[in-house]
Amino acid sequence: MGFFSKDIKSMDDLFVHTLRDIYYAENQIVKALPKMVDKVSNMELKKGFEKHLQETKGHIERLEQVFEMHGIEISGVNCPAIDGILEEADDVSGEIDDKRVLDAALIASAQAVEHYEITRYGTLIAWAKQLGRDDCAGLLDLNLQEEIRTDRALTGVAESHVNAAAN
Amino acid sequence: MGFFSKDIKSMDDLFVHTLRDIYYAENQIVKALPKMVDKVSNMELKKGFEKHLQETKGHIERLEQVFEMHGIEISGVNCPAIDGILEEADDVSGEIDDKRVLDAALIASAQAVEHYEITRYGTLIAWAKQLGRDDCAGLLDLNLQEEIRTDRALTGVAESHVNAAAN
Repeated sequence: MGFFSKDIKSMDDLFVHTLRDIYYAENQIVKALPKMVDKVSNMELKKGFEKHLQETKGHIERLEQVFEMHGIEISGVNCPAIDGILEEADDVSGEIDDKRVLDAALIASAQAVEHYEITRYGTLIAWAKQLGRDDCAGLLDLNLQEEIRTDRALTGVAESHVNAAAN
Repeated sequence: MGFFSKDIKSMDDLFVHTLRDIYYAENQIVKALPKMVDKVSNMELKKGFEKHLQETKGHIERLEQVFEMHGIEISGVNCPAIDGILEEADDVSGEIDDKRVLDAALIASAQAVEHYEITRYGTLIAWAKQLGRDDCAGLLDLNLQEEIRTDRALTGVAESHVNAAAN
């Protein structure tokens, strides 16, 4: 928070702050996903996590384009929300040995991450449009649509997986 | 995590753990919402937060019914995810003086909370059904539907609010 301490004075400042929040979050997710790939057993899910890791790297590049479009320095701010979501994912998965149960927990954790990103991108797009930055909104929407698709894909895997795991 | 340390062995254990996670989360939200009610200026939003505070108390009661239905002790487990989301909400709102900007930040924070709850309830309902607990799933779905309605209402307020704030 240091960089912006007591310094969010306008909607533009809030937009930039939140952009830096999701930039930090995406970078933390890039670090967390390989650990999830290692832990997961279901091959469909493993491929899904690997695909989303590549997408997430693309999201970071798009965010850097948005920083440049908006004429601001590329940087993150601490985001206790994503830190908490990832800490919880790590805590829970560390308490499970059974592979199917672990996969179910990893799907749930990944969906919590997706929902955080979906809400933040939704907010950022609304603010960008209102600030007259349709160019920024368009790029942010590409990230949002990929997060939504990932969440839906996870729901699909979850349904088939839990069917099996509950038997 | 202490109560369940290394002890999530089955889908049922994972369901119970996640039930305790959302139970803790709902209790933290009940503590956080009055502070958000105090900070917000927009009257529609203030009423919305007050309404959701009452709904959240109802969610806690429904969760307690689910614990009883499932024959388990009513208790929470630490949930670093909601702690992080609420910490971030508090951090950001503490950096804003302008009322309209503060309202926009509070809407975004409330939507982050809603999305966390939506993903957790979605997961819990899927697991409850697969575990043959349609009775639990039915109650959890009542909470989910209220969270979804709250998120949509917040989006509506956000759109009209940001229109005004960006002018």
